[in-house]
Amino acid sequence: MDLIKELIEGSRLALARSITAVENEYDNAIDIMKAIYPRTGKARILGITGAPGAGKSTLTDKVVKHYLEQGKRIGIVAVDPTSPFSGGAILGDRIRMNDLTLNENVFIRSMGTRGSLGGLSKKTADVVKLMDAFGMDLVIIETVGVGQSEVDIVKNADTTLVVLVPGLGDDIQAIKAGILEIGDVFAINKADRDGCDKLNVEIEMMLDLDSRELDWRPPIKRTIASKDEGVDELVEALDEHFEYLEDSGELAARRAERTRDELVAMINEQIMRYVHEHVVESDAFKQDVAAVNTRTNDPYSVVNAVLEKSLKR
Amino acid sequence: MDLIKELIEGSRLALARSITAVENEYDNAIDIMKAIYPRTGKARILGITGAPGAGKSTLTDKVVKHYLEQGKRIGIVAVDPTSPFSGGAILGDRIRMNDLTLNENVFIRSMGTRGSLGGLSKKTADVVKLMDAFGMDLVIIETVGVGQSEVDIVKNADTTLVVLVPGLGDDIQAIKAGILEIGDVFAINKADRDGCDKLNVEIEMMLDLDSRELDWRPPIKRTIASKDEGVDELVEALDEHFEYLEDSGELAARRAERTRDELVAMINEQIMRYVHEHVVESDAFKQDVAAVNTRTNDPYSVVNAVLEKSLKR
Repeated sequence: MDLIKELIEGSRLALARSITAVENEYDNAIDIMKAIYPRTGKARILGITGAPGAGKSTLTDKVVKHYLEQGKRIGIVAVDPTSPFSGGAILGDRIRMNDLTLNENVFIRSMGTRGSLGGLSKKTADVVKLMDAFGMDLVIIETVGVGQSEVDIVKNADTTLVVLVPGLGDDIQAIKAGILEIGDVFAINKADRDGCDKLNVEIEMMLDLDSRELDWRPPIKRTIASKDEGVDELVEALDEHFEYLEDSGELAARRAERTRDELVAMINEQIMRYVHEHVVESDAFKQDVAAVNTRTNDPYSVVNAVLEKSLKR
Repeated sequence: MDLIKELIEGSRLALARSITAVENEYDNAIDIMKAIYPRTGKARILGITGAPGAGKSTLTDKVVKHYLEQGKRIGIVAVDPTSPFSGGAILGDRIRMNDLTLNENVFIRSMGTRGSLGGLSKKTADVVKLMDAFGMDLVIIETVGVGQSEVDIVKNADTTLVVLVPGLGDDIQAIKAGILEIGDVFAINKADRDGCDKLNVEIEMMLDLDSRELDWRPPIKRTIASKDEGVDELVEALDEHFEYLEDSGELAARRAERTRDELVAMINEQIMRYVHEHVVESDAFKQDVAAVNTRTNDPYSVVNAVLEKSLKR
């Protein structure tokens, strides 16, 4: 297929079109993903998440610029699970990343939900793979917010940077959402604000409570992204974490686990889709529902019959 | 089975044991649910939810007492998706409902997560059915909090009462969690507090924005549960809603939809269990994961092969 050939040869337009195909589940989406799959696994994947208003976007920009200076090619997937917009249509991102968009070593794509929140993590993973196959050295997944869906999305990354900001509530909010457990590196952004030391202590305390025996202690770096302060040290910490992952064998282990989880999720989704199309939308199932509803049959017998009809065992 | 016979004959101990079996997924759980299913569908199901600190528990107590005076038998399922405790072990509830626990026409059960948040709504539905089959006239599902899991749990009810309280933030929090859309009746509890009128106006405005064309306009009742003020009027509104459901045919429609949703959820759950047992834990799958991980195979081919092996088509 021409599109795949062009993508591999470095056409940005082909990359954009491939992402659109995957995002909208066009007929050729699976063919594209199959074809590019052997070319994936080379890029380093960095997740950036944190509380709203923590300055994630500005910090991401500064981090990107540091890597660009090293000659790296960078893909950015900005995911907003609360926004219905996609396809680079999130206006704020466009304005904000204006100078990056002009850089031929950067490719930015925004993604929203378009209704199907469950599929957003899978689609993000696919877009990351497309950018990886395209030849990006680094792919950054940036998510807005701290909910469970953001945590799921950022689990597609090798290294996760959690951005926090001093001030009442943020810390508690982040802890509740389980975001501390997924952080490999922490940044306290807007570090010139009051409460920076307090937040630092709180994160350290949380890390002390972590019962997993890890060889990596997540470092906490202070930054003021708007003034480019502390970003050098932050990038250093991110690089150290990736080196740790490689040296310890943890990178291979994490990626193998991710492959496994992705396969299981795909299998579950496909079987559910099959059963939904062939059973749930059938007239027979409508009659089953009616029978259960009038108590002439029970749900357990119906479910058993459906599985018997659908699954080999 | 003796347990089922005793449950139907009115043994409270048998009811308690059956609930424990369902909660812990004991081997006999499905047999119990199958056996009692024909006896369900008689009880009226009332969901009570709202912001933490709104005084839901006190209000529930007062509502229960009103129905007890009418000679009703009442089951209460108190669900806390944030608590790992279950089996009536939430201390606060026990103390609080002490006088109700002594009443032979009331059966109270607390449920927590025990880890599996996804299954809590299904388990709540099963416990409601057990109480229904036991012969309760009214089953109340009370949930703590306003998150998505609480909304899912309360969807098992015929009538949903949303309890709000005057004061900064509560209203916004409730609106965000989509709780306003599931309210059939609203109570502004602690109505002697400042901000009661403001909250009332806000709810009315939200209801005006509701684009669904409903024949039922959710009434807003003011209560002070601790002083038993406004509870008569609230109970009246709850009864009116149930009459509306019956007269309009909405009750039958809602219950049919719930039956369908429950069946689909059970089918999906069984599919995932099947995939886990027959696919994920097999040696062949481990090899598949390794092949995908080393890029000697791609995920889409693996998924296709698994579907070919699993589905009767």
